[in-house]
Amino acid sequence: MIILSRSEIEALIDLDSALGAVEAGYVAASEGRATIPPVGYLAFPERDGDCHIKYGHIAGDPSFVVKIASGFYGNPLLGLPTSNGVMLVFSASTGILEAILLDEGFLTDLRTGLGGAVATRALCRPDARRVAIIGTGIQARWQIRCLRHAMKQTPLTFGLWGRSETKARETANVMASEGIDVEVAPDLERLCREADIIITTTPSRTPLIHDAWIRPGTHITAIGADAPGKQELDTALVIRADRRISDRLEQSLDHGEFSTAFTSGSIAAEDCAEIGAVLGGKATGRTRSDDITIADLTGIAIQDIAIAGSILDAYRLSMTG
Amino acid sequence: MIILSRSEIEALIDLDSALGAVEAGYVAASEGRATIPPVGYLAFPERDGDCHIKYGHIAGDPSFVVKIASGFYGNPLLGLPTSNGVMLVFSASTGILEAILLDEGFLTDLRTGLGGAVATRALCRPDARRVAIIGTGIQARWQIRCLRHAMKQTPLTFGLWGRSETKARETANVMASEGIDVEVAPDLERLCREADIIITTTPSRTPLIHDAWIRPGTHITAIGADAPGKQELDTALVIRADRRISDRLEQSLDHGEFSTAFTSGSIAAEDCAEIGAVLGGKATGRTRSDDITIADLTGIAIQDIAIAGSILDAYRLSMTG
Repeated sequence: MIILSRSEIEALIDLDSALGAVEAGYVAASEGRATIPPVGYLAFPERDGDCHIKYGHIAGDPSFVVKIASGFYGNPLLGLPTSNGVMLVFSASTGILEAILLDEGFLTDLRTGLGGAVATRALCRPDARRVAIIGTGIQARWQIRCLRHAMKQTPLTFGLWGRSETKARETANVMASEGIDVEVAPDLERLCREADIIITTTPSRTPLIHDAWIRPGTHITAIGADAPGKQELDTALVIRADRRISDRLEQSLDHGEFSTAFTSGSIAAEDCAEIGAVLGGKATGRTRSDDITIADLTGIAIQDIAIAGSILDAYRLSMTG
Repeated sequence: MIILSRSEIEALIDLDSALGAVEAGYVAASEGRATIPPVGYLAFPERDGDCHIKYGHIAGDPSFVVKIASGFYGNPLLGLPTSNGVMLVFSASTGILEAILLDEGFLTDLRTGLGGAVATRALCRPDARRVAIIGTGIQARWQIRCLRHAMKQTPLTFGLWGRSETKARETANVMASEGIDVEVAPDLERLCREADIIITTTPSRTPLIHDAWIRPGTHITAIGADAPGKQELDTALVIRADRRISDRLEQSLDHGEFSTAFTSGSIAAEDCAEIGAVLGGKATGRTRSDDITIADLTGIAIQDIAIAGSILDAYRLSMTG
């Protein structure tokens, strides 16, 4: 059995193959080739913590994956990271445990970044250049890294806004140390008005991005809303968008960015599509240069399956090569 | 983080503390102090395999536990065990993974044996001596081991019946090598008629144990029925029993030994009780010497939590001692 630590996993990451794996996973999910049961959940209210168990299997895959991820929001006060996690890979032929990926939540951050990059690349204008990143946390960094990698042929520029300018500078410095220029933007409205691509990564409960700020042709990828009550985008903007794309439609309509517009009856499920269907040619993505497109990503187990498989492939290659 | 292999786990087992932990877990579950979400499930029909994810938390416990257990029924043809499994123990204060118990299903076998022993000891007559074990698999052995340990002050005798006399002799030989005399019984009916305690451990889909064979005062612990369609006991016997006890009533009524009698309206939920309530003094167990008592055990995550905690306690003790 294979047991890999976080640092071993980090050393094995190959962003190209991971991007391809996440993309293929989205397609499999939308084509009904994936079994993804409801997410398991345990709450620890007295510790402001919770635990999610995501698991599933893609038909024909040699393995299946169980991910256990926790978020304990008082951990930073103890000097500990909020998020933790582990992924287990089992043989789909024998049920035998093949690998334990002790990633401590790293792979969840990465697969979320990859999912954003896949959706953004698929839906933005071919001539999109200016990327606005909203939020300054871990996920802001991963969205930048993964999009930069996914669109390395395109001379993207990155502007970053956060409520704390100090944290925005910190993130820009980290990105600079990795060779990616990120400009800190003091004015959220202006950043959005000038952007071709907007990626929102905040846990906001009131819409941050106003409809009036968004010009035709803009693509928006929204990552933050992953639970009821969270919303980063103006409902009017969701209604106005020409294409509404989701990683898993039932989640986006239930607790993602599309839920308010859906619940109020302003949009129907038929007015949305899944990214896997777009990637697989079964649904339309952007059709015109001035379409406003929104990708709402709430996260699905298929990304975990994809990233775990990608790490194990890389590990096996490193052993034989 | 602690990672323990199957052999390390086997060496750490202390049956007394494990029995106490399972007993305390049952009480906690029946008193509503445990959070036990629905079991997660993945099926692999083309491989005759499945995977169950059981998890939960007892209020106030420092840890929570996730168990992933698989059964792939074609494995023996490949020279592999049918069952596999791993238990993960997380801090309930920080969500951090504390321990991985690579037990390969061993702890599930053990905790099932312990659950049977706890229920049998609580419900049999004080003067019960003759134990009939039905079935010759792994669980027959664990029921014998655990009951013998749980009732070590009582001079129990064990008779064993299985469809294959060869396998029955094999199991008796294994037990003899562990110092426990087990007599192979050629006649199931006679074994049942003479027993004070009957423990059924088969995956039978047609009732094996007939009502007419059971004399007043007998206690029966049924372990085998853990899925719809399985049934070891005559429905008439279930209806006739004076006390019907379950580890988790909703499971026993849905897919355990009580389901046929319940579905046909012959018994109601109020005619049954949970073992935790009996152990905690909130429900009545055996009241008279000639009561027929039945314990139907379909298995609950609380047993996994209990056994994992017990192993970790023993490990920590071994490190400090």
